[in-house]
Amino acid sequence: MKRVIVTGASGFIGRYTLPQLVQAGFEVHAVSRHPDPEPCEGVFWHHINLMDEQSVATLCSSIEASHLLHLAWYTEHGEFWHADENLDWVACSLHLLKYFVHHGGQRVVMAGSCAEYDWHGVGLCSEEQTPCNPATLYGVSKHALHQVAAAYCSNHQVELVWGRVFFLYGPGETGSRFVPAVINGLLQQEIVPCSSGQQVRDFMHVADVAEAFVALLASEVCGAVNVASGESCRLREIGEEMMRQIRGRGVVEFGALLDRQGDPAVLTADATRLCDELGWRPTYSLEQGLAETIAWWKQRQEKYDAN
Amino acid sequence: MKRVIVTGASGFIGRYTLPQLVQAGFEVHAVSRHPDPEPCEGVFWHHINLMDEQSVATLCSSIEASHLLHLAWYTEHGEFWHADENLDWVACSLHLLKYFVHHGGQRVVMAGSCAEYDWHGVGLCSEEQTPCNPATLYGVSKHALHQVAAAYCSNHQVELVWGRVFFLYGPGETGSRFVPAVINGLLQQEIVPCSSGQQVRDFMHVADVAEAFVALLASEVCGAVNVASGESCRLREIGEEMMRQIRGRGVVEFGALLDRQGDPAVLTADATRLCDELGWRPTYSLEQGLAETIAWWKQRQEKYDAN
Repeated sequence: MKRVIVTGASGFIGRYTLPQLVQAGFEVHAVSRHPDPEPCEGVFWHHINLMDEQSVATLCSSIEASHLLHLAWYTEHGEFWHADENLDWVACSLHLLKYFVHHGGQRVVMAGSCAEYDWHGVGLCSEEQTPCNPATLYGVSKHALHQVAAAYCSNHQVELVWGRVFFLYGPGETGSRFVPAVINGLLQQEIVPCSSGQQVRDFMHVADVAEAFVALLASEVCGAVNVASGESCRLREIGEEMMRQIRGRGVVEFGALLDRQGDPAVLTADATRLCDELGWRPTYSLEQGLAETIAWWKQRQEKYDAN
Repeated sequence: MKRVIVTGASGFIGRYTLPQLVQAGFEVHAVSRHPDPEPCEGVFWHHINLMDEQSVATLCSSIEASHLLHLAWYTEHGEFWHADENLDWVACSLHLLKYFVHHGGQRVVMAGSCAEYDWHGVGLCSEEQTPCNPATLYGVSKHALHQVAAAYCSNHQVELVWGRVFFLYGPGETGSRFVPAVINGLLQQEIVPCSSGQQVRDFMHVADVAEAFVALLASEVCGAVNVASGESCRLREIGEEMMRQIRGRGVVEFGALLDRQGDPAVLTADATRLCDELGWRPTYSLEQGLAETIAWWKQRQEKYDAN
């Protein structure tokens, strides 16, 4: 029986992985601090604080999972890059990994980040060729965790996949981030101030990101793998597509805000490992994904207006 | 008032730092798990388990130290290279650092290791030129901690020195390690089996290692600094010097044991930063240091024989 512990299970990516994991034949043990996540058939919920080492030890010993999908981290928009919480997440991730392995764990997938790569080089990030040289505490912390986890798993003959997440969007995203902020502004007929929009990024629908993680977990691929579509575009194009689809009086004003300091002009992913080794492709086009996301926010707004 | 928390205070290096720290004008708060360390005038002892986050938080909030000298780690001879405990020490070191900084800490010195360097390259390890590419879980863990600590301290304008320890010896060392194993074997008139002895290493007396750490703590130097003499010799020469000084019927049989797998032929330190930037030099010659160490073991043996 494949039995998986999923952390961050009520988070943006996590909640999308749950039905997919059930579908893939896993007995799913979802971990969340939040007491009332949306129910999902076939999922066992565990409401624990991952910062509490004793709770983590008890969880791992009671479940004896074969698989671990570790998505939880501190992700407060704008804050997470330099937050002290990054230290806590390195520490609790190491505890989690240790107890998981001590109780028979065999295969681990953890969420890394494109922020681990050296952003000063060329824009295309390759797992094997682009050096890691993170410029933020978040990137440094993820990268440090990867190194320790890789050495530890190697000592214990446990398989490790380190899935480096790039950019994502979709229903359920925190409202202050780029895509939802633009959608909501446009739906409210506002002028939405944005940065230059010249930044080239690899954006992927969150359901596809979740599907890639589940596919990685169920596969035999190991090591660092970029979790991205391999196709990229300017933020401006994404903004213009949202304007095209919403067609109201709202408008995105590119250049009204400064670009975030240290943000590279081009940050895109070499998705060869995901595509060729895993044989996986995203389902959503950007057009479809944005349409679905816009519909979700519209529905939410209607619900809100009705109350 | 300069107030320092010293971890690993009853350990091999730690116990030598205490009188030196008092001498240097620090109010010294020594942390150890052991209930009965040797008394040292002017030192306040705190018997806590650093693995217990709450104890660490309470310690840091009650002391409000300006300085932190973090020497504690898992060091069981032969075991520490690949021990799971390395993960716990990364985790608890991050907690310690966070609480120290939250309670006003200003300057941190932590013990790193020559095991962080890439041992496949040239034998001379330079802080600025030799890449870090650790081959063991111990080296990976120390290196990962350094990266996170450096990014975190930089965010908080806290000064960090990362002192990479090379090889050390002296009174009080664990009996199973090279120097004491040879001394005790020779004192017992035994044939002491050793590896080839061809390995070139930078050995420094533990009192000098401690003095270098205290000097670093009291200085304004920052970043990675090799804690080593800058002079090196073959293990064989150290063995021969011990035979010369003990002059008994015992003999060191080089080549009787295999060299440790993965051990580099030459592993020496560029000590320019310590010597030129800090202006520090070791006190002991190898000859003097070994003489003192042999005398210490002789005295111990006499005490043992008398009981």
